[in-house]
Amino acid sequence: MTTIAVDAMGGDYGIEVTVPAAVSAATHHREHEIILVGLKDQIEDQLGKARPSNLRVEHASEQVEMDESPALALRKKKDSSMRVAINLIKDGEADACVSAGNTGALMATARFVLKTLPGIDRPSLVTTIPNMRPAGHVHVLDLGANVDSPAELLVQFGIMGSILVQSVEKVDRPKVALLNIGHEDIKGNDTIKAAAKFMRESNLNFVGFVEGDGIYTSDVDVIVCDGFVGNVAIKTSEGLAQMIKHILREEVQANMLTRLAGLASMPVLKRLGRRMDPRNYNGAPLVGLQGTVIKSHGGTDSTGFEAAIVEAVKVAATNVPERIRDGLGPLLGEQ
Amino acid sequence: MTTIAVDAMGGDYGIEVTVPAAVSAATHHREHEIILVGLKDQIEDQLGKARPSNLRVEHASEQVEMDESPALALRKKKDSSMRVAINLIKDGEADACVSAGNTGALMATARFVLKTLPGIDRPSLVTTIPNMRPAGHVHVLDLGANVDSPAELLVQFGIMGSILVQSVEKVDRPKVALLNIGHEDIKGNDTIKAAAKFMRESNLNFVGFVEGDGIYTSDVDVIVCDGFVGNVAIKTSEGLAQMIKHILREEVQANMLTRLAGLASMPVLKRLGRRMDPRNYNGAPLVGLQGTVIKSHGGTDSTGFEAAIVEAVKVAATNVPERIRDGLGPLLGEQ
Repeated sequence: MTTIAVDAMGGDYGIEVTVPAAVSAATHHREHEIILVGLKDQIEDQLGKARPSNLRVEHASEQVEMDESPALALRKKKDSSMRVAINLIKDGEADACVSAGNTGALMATARFVLKTLPGIDRPSLVTTIPNMRPAGHVHVLDLGANVDSPAELLVQFGIMGSILVQSVEKVDRPKVALLNIGHEDIKGNDTIKAAAKFMRESNLNFVGFVEGDGIYTSDVDVIVCDGFVGNVAIKTSEGLAQMIKHILREEVQANMLTRLAGLASMPVLKRLGRRMDPRNYNGAPLVGLQGTVIKSHGGTDSTGFEAAIVEAVKVAATNVPERIRDGLGPLLGEQ
Repeated sequence: MTTIAVDAMGGDYGIEVTVPAAVSAATHHREHEIILVGLKDQIEDQLGKARPSNLRVEHASEQVEMDESPALALRKKKDSSMRVAINLIKDGEADACVSAGNTGALMATARFVLKTLPGIDRPSLVTTIPNMRPAGHVHVLDLGANVDSPAELLVQFGIMGSILVQSVEKVDRPKVALLNIGHEDIKGNDTIKAAAKFMRESNLNFVGFVEGDGIYTSDVDVIVCDGFVGNVAIKTSEGLAQMIKHILREEVQANMLTRLAGLASMPVLKRLGRRMDPRNYNGAPLVGLQGTVIKSHGGTDSTGFEAAIVEAVKVAATNVPERIRDGLGPLLGEQ
């Protein structure tokens, strides 16, 4: 049995999304337990009579706002739903926690409460992105938890990503690549060049550089980048997808022929939409901590948030923190 | 009359693409002159009898390879088509040059031969990206010419982008934004924060931060970023577009219904393709030099390369270098 603590107050929609998602996850996964953390009265109201026996509520009197400073949230809100959910891991009451709340605050709080693993300087946010390779997706880190990552940190990201994919996806020697602005060794900034050198000397299955398009087209398992760059890449993709939808809608309205074409193309566009639905890929592990923390997209709906809870169960079951602790030295090539 | 020097040997396809593009541009723009620079015999062969009177050939005995080190190209290939084309600007024989060759070599050679404008530390590559705003596109710089750009350089990029858009697009006070990983002032790395401070103190029409999705969805005229980040953003977009095409093709093949739907949706997809066709946006000015240099995508066809030649005529006609020279001090807020 795995127990998941859910920050019920986090995200753009709070309990309206988190509570139905938790109820559905608990109903579909009777073997696991879910603890909804937040304002008890509000959660109880939202729950109504839909309460599976493997779901319980833990009160927390405060909540972290989406635009609140992480430092302030950490210092002032010791009874926030986010903090209490993370405390449950530390106290051994939960195996993992899920939050759709303020990313910076989640990262700062998780790091403060759970601490990083020995040898890991900073935790990193790993996201799964759908792509063209046979596996259907790639893992990319860091996704905005760390800006200005030095070469040593990028190597740690590579090792953590490799161990995560090996554990959760059962890939034997995950192929790890560095995101760069060219394939050739002379390309990139000093940080990327140094990171590539370290990775080549490590026991990682390092396959070299990929460029931005490689996120969607290359056949690697893990792509490593600085958090600033990773965040820009993922947000740029969101913007492009939004624009394509917008133009398609406009062009369908162009004339009678295009309107008919638009109608006729629904089955194909629906299939495309399903394959690229970000809700299917929701739930980004924050790796490098002494505990399992999963970040959900803040604006997701209950289907997406449930996917993040299921991801938490999956990651917690494989005990990624312990594997990172054991694997770090050997992968770095240390004796 | 504007004279454009064309590096005939550059790009993935060399004279097969550049010569027909130059012939077509010369035929459509009788008022301008085109100089094709490269191996004279090969160019003459490719030209055959199709030779408009406003097109001439200038011999250059060498060519820079696409994967050649920029430093080596600069030192060893003094008679390369790229170098000779740029020399024509310096000698006053051409108003601008266009090359689809090695970006690093083009940048290094242009900088060495033409020199940067007073007060500009490094030239920057500006690209035009189609987006959702009424203007239909946005200008983004830097696109890979500079990695690790310090804050002062980002401000110079903002000023050069602003002057380019003002000159070529006749926008009065272009809205300039910085690419960041959040809208709030506390987000981003130290470089971005410092650049934002400088831009706020300048006379630029600085409107704050946009995130990656803002490239496609926000209503600003100029987006400024480090060359590494800009390159990743644009390449990531290319990869996503490629994946969407790939999935659409797969899903159309799924069953009889989807095949019919695919057939029926052709008119809409064609319109979408036309609006997003990168060939329409080919030709990225390298700004900050004492001369006008336009970089074409290396893999473009003759339609795309002709667009780059036309862009060169447009940019050369507005005399962007002189405007940057005159505008830099006032926009920085200097007396």
